[in-house]
Amino acid sequence: MPKGVLLTISAPSGTGKSTLINMLIREQPEFGFSVSYTTRKPRKGEISGKDYFFVSPEEFTRLIDQDFFAEWARVHGNYYGTPGPKVLDALNAGQSLVFDIDVQGAAQLKMNLKTGLFVFIFPPSLKILEQRLRKRGTDNPETIRTRIKNAEQEILKSSLFDYWIVNHELRTAFNDLKSIIRAERLRSVNFPGLPGRILNRE
Amino acid sequence: MPKGVLLTISAPSGTGKSTLINMLIREQPEFGFSVSYTTRKPRKGEISGKDYFFVSPEEFTRLIDQDFFAEWARVHGNYYGTPGPKVLDALNAGQSLVFDIDVQGAAQLKMNLKTGLFVFIFPPSLKILEQRLRKRGTDNPETIRTRIKNAEQEILKSSLFDYWIVNHELRTAFNDLKSIIRAERLRSVNFPGLPGRILNRE
Repeated sequence: MPKGVLLTISAPSGTGKSTLINMLIREQPEFGFSVSYTTRKPRKGEISGKDYFFVSPEEFTRLIDQDFFAEWARVHGNYYGTPGPKVLDALNAGQSLVFDIDVQGAAQLKMNLKTGLFVFIFPPSLKILEQRLRKRGTDNPETIRTRIKNAEQEILKSSLFDYWIVNHELRTAFNDLKSIIRAERLRSVNFPGLPGRILNRE
Repeated sequence: MPKGVLLTISAPSGTGKSTLINMLIREQPEFGFSVSYTTRKPRKGEISGKDYFFVSPEEFTRLIDQDFFAEWARVHGNYYGTPGPKVLDALNAGQSLVFDIDVQGAAQLKMNLKTGLFVFIFPPSLKILEQRLRKRGTDNPETIRTRIKNAEQEILKSSLFDYWIVNHELRTAFNDLKSIIRAERLRSVNFPGLPGRILNRE
């Protein structure tokens, strides 16, 4: 059985990353999300093991010490982490996974998992990103300035990603993403048994 | 300017390789063929520098000694070689190249150029390959047996190729090939200047 594809996508806010991921999951429902661990309290309706694995800070610290996480971060006083061994087991069992993660988390994932597709989505330019954020109308000018500053910082770190897509136009960017995934599925390392199967004359 | 794509394709005879390459060049005329060197005499109408660079055996031997060739072979008493430095210069200038070459030549190219896409095309099975060769009607049973034997040998060496395509159906195989090429064009190493261009606010 071919291995699953591990797809990690990062992009500045407003670049269309979430839209692209939603399009992908709709068209290729074999992609799952990895369930993260967190120390924050479950919100109403959230189920442990589905939305997150909810654990205590002590448990989380113990898991860090055991190198259980492929990446983890502290955000607003809560811990969030991606389980490394579980991810690798899922891939080996043929499950494909998509990670929607910031540049810092992607850097940790790449270092620890040493496998997978790392894709960075660029806006056509900072100017166009600013126009898109303004048009969206959900952020005030101060927030937009912060987002542009963050975008600059993220773009400066984009070289850690193996693949770059410029989102000029959504349909083209989506086809680019699908080409990258398709090519990954055709890599010989993911099909160790194929030549034997072709040679079998039965 | 993005670098050109170096595409090397090998496949057993009867697998559809030439058809796929012709489809590719028709749809993506930016792909060129690399002009090889040979010691054989030019045939009527052949032009040196277009069909081949025709050189003397002494000149060819001198070029071998200078490590000029990315791969070379002796076939029926004549030498044939692919010039390494010229190929790399062409790629750096943005020219894409396709090599239609046997497994042995592909192995040499990979070792010497250390770059490019190496794609192997499989038949769905040896049985189907044999049926296709028989249906084609151009080979006698003895030749078909030889081709199947050669196919087995080539398939046993297929692990040196980065990408594997099984040609069950021509259109799907062609789309697979195009995905591999598109993904290669999106690799960040091929666009060193992109982040700077996005950050430029002009």
